[in-house]
Amino acid sequence: MSEQSEALVKKVTDNGITTLTLNQPERRNSLSVAMLEALSTELESVSDDPETRVVVLAAAGKVFCAGHDLREVREQFDSHEFQLKLFNLCSKVMQQIVNLPKPVIARVAGVATAAGCQLVASCDLAVAADTARFATPGVNIGLFCSTPMVALSRNVSRKHAMEMLLTGEMVDAIKAERLGLVNQVVDEQALDEAVYRLAKTIAGKSGFTLRIGKEAFYKQLEMGLAEAYDYTSEVMANNMQAADAQEGICAFLEKREPDWKDK
Amino acid sequence: MSEQSEALVKKVTDNGITTLTLNQPERRNSLSVAMLEALSTELESVSDDPETRVVVLAAAGKVFCAGHDLREVREQFDSHEFQLKLFNLCSKVMQQIVNLPKPVIARVAGVATAAGCQLVASCDLAVAADTARFATPGVNIGLFCSTPMVALSRNVSRKHAMEMLLTGEMVDAIKAERLGLVNQVVDEQALDEAVYRLAKTIAGKSGFTLRIGKEAFYKQLEMGLAEAYDYTSEVMANNMQAADAQEGICAFLEKREPDWKDK
Amino acid sequence: MSEQSEALVKKVTDNGITTLTLNQPERRNSLSVAMLEALSTELESVSDDPETRVVVLAAAGKVFCAGHDLREVREQFDSHEFQLKLFNLCSKVMQQIVNLPKPVIARVAGVATAAGCQLVASCDLAVAADTARFATPGVNIGLFCSTPMVALSRNVSRKHAMEMLLTGEMVDAIKAERLGLVNQVVDEQALDEAVYRLAKTIAGKSGFTLRIGKEAFYKQLEMGLAEAYDYTSEVMANNMQAADAQEGICAFLEKREPDWKDK
Repeated sequence: MSEQSEALVKKVTDNGITTLTLNQPERRNSLSVAMLEALSTELESVSDDPETRVVVLAAAGKVFCAGHDLREVREQFDSHEFQLKLFNLCSKVMQQIVNLPKPVIARVAGVATAAGCQLVASCDLAVAADTARFATPGVNIGLFCSTPMVALSRNVSRKHAMEMLLTGEMVDAIKAERLGLVNQVVDEQALDEAVYRLAKTIAGKSGFTLRIGKEAFYKQLEMGLAEAYDYTSEVMANNMQAADAQEGICAFLEKREPDWKDK
Repeated sequence: MSEQSEALVKKVTDNGITTLTLNQPERRNSLSVAMLEALSTELESVSDDPETRVVVLAAAGKVFCAGHDLREVREQFDSHEFQLKLFNLCSKVMQQIVNLPKPVIARVAGVATAAGCQLVASCDLAVAADTARFATPGVNIGLFCSTPMVALSRNVSRKHAMEMLLTGEMVDAIKAERLGLVNQVVDEQALDEAVYRLAKTIAGKSGFTLRIGKEAFYKQLEMGLAEAYDYTSEVMANNMQAADAQEGICAFLEKREPDWKDK
Repeated sequence: MSEQSEALVKKVTDNGITTLTLNQPERRNSLSVAMLEALSTELESVSDDPETRVVVLAAAGKVFCAGHDLREVREQFDSHEFQLKLFNLCSKVMQQIVNLPKPVIARVAGVATAAGCQLVASCDLAVAADTARFATPGVNIGLFCSTPMVALSRNVSRKHAMEMLLTGEMVDAIKAERLGLVNQVVDEQALDEAVYRLAKTIAGKSGFTLRIGKEAFYKQLEMGLAEAYDYTSEVMANNMQAADAQEGICAFLEKREPDWKDK
């Protein structure tokens, strides 16, 4: 981990919960190349970290994340190569979240727009303050939110996604919850507690089980029904051979707490 | 139909509506191999039964279905072959419901967990008592609900499915309805009436029409838009050649009740 | 544009907003071959029309659209060729809406049934009067709504779509909004204003940006996650080279209104 990435993305691990905090509030935590690289590095590091069972993605300051860094983008208007590299990097980071072998919870306070909204949509779960707001406003600056919509349209039904994309207008937290973009909305003062409660619940499960479950979840979503059942039947039969499943089932039948091998 | 399957799954047909009742309340109607085989046998038998126009899937006792039989599973911890056979059988039964040429309505009172929740998600429609509750709690025993999530994630949006799968927590009937897992929630006392009203409405349609419609529904869901339209345009043109369509259209234009050939 | 098509579908363009109005209220705006051909012709004409930035699909009279013309269909019961041509034509028109390089908003007052409900589901956005109602009642006349369900099941979750298809029952506007079939429900008196406000908001964006965004939206929906990100990353990098994106970004950074080249 470079010093720069430490500066841009703060990492704190406590009780199996690693919080990655976008840490450039003066730039509205925008996803510059440097910020994306820092986030990518941190995601990679938590991926293998045995101390990390659950990841919380948070942000410092009043804006969760304002999307790409438009000043940086403007400086490179003439370089198609730079732009493609930028969007490929951003898409890679979003997929790192999906492919991370640990659950990722977005902790959203403030505004999450464009690629910032995509970050929230890419996380497995999201908890928002009642003051949070969401938009994909690229259409307002002539740059349609085409990569953000990949994540958005896999969270939210078609007409609602299209409304956000075509109008660029803000959606408040309550509506975002109704649409399926966030799981839960709480008072801003209660946000940390709600996120912690959720993260702690999940951190108490077997890490092995979370890993195979999350991987299978996203894989089977892209399959037809018959293929998905063939695939997940094998996943479950294999899961059953694992120490943590046998311990969990025995503990359940014996009415005691399980003692996970893969904590 | 063996005597054992009669014991495990009760079948009653009345007025075109066949109710299959999971009938082992003392075992929380868990999906042991025997129960799955009994259910599979009954589904096969109603498939061709001319007296059955609609199927209701119900359960005796206070628990709708608690998922797999963990005692049975524990006895076979060492047999990967048994486990794979079990999950393949379970996946086969779930797909029998989807592929059954007749609509299937889940009648849910009490708790539906793991593969029990999957049963509800696999039915075409579901009506729940306000006291019903739903969960995919495999994660709590080290055995991620990987096959249940195939059905769950095709009913409920991603973040909501993930929340159920990662936390294992209960979702009440009202929330289940909001998420799309059930169609309707009623007072427990009104459950039979609500299920009957729905089943009777559907039993009054042409069986031929229900059969081709249900089949086409699930097939086209797995296609891209253009392919889905090519396929269903043919389905409709063929449907139009059928006696029941021509009778139905004439009856409508002549303002009289249709007299279905394929009741 | 033939005289007949002018009669069946009225076209009015004002301020970049083209309203296409199904104009055969005495036939409940049913989708006869002639009506479908007229609508197809008008969609084709607005597709290239530089004056049209947003399309509103409306209907004259108390019924939005009652689906196919059953009298016409009955006259051709014996012609499988006619029926296939009819459903292929209808499916073509629905896909013209999806593939139109301009956003299409349904303005729904009254009842939208069968292929009429499909029209609403096929539009990018929909605003409904509180008196609007929706159904796919083909099952009542022996003709399952197999083509309508292609659009419906891509708007609404599985169990809700199945309920509409199997029962044929009406869904009111409030429920349609909850299910995702329409974006917004307003008092019938406020319908024109709500549609106009939405259309005007979108008409103020760059036409180029709307075109590439809408196209990419539906394309990426049919891809797996990795493929969708590869594809949209290219779309965004190319978008960034366009005059309207560079103008939009500069205008944003300079805190002024953008001056779109492709209005």
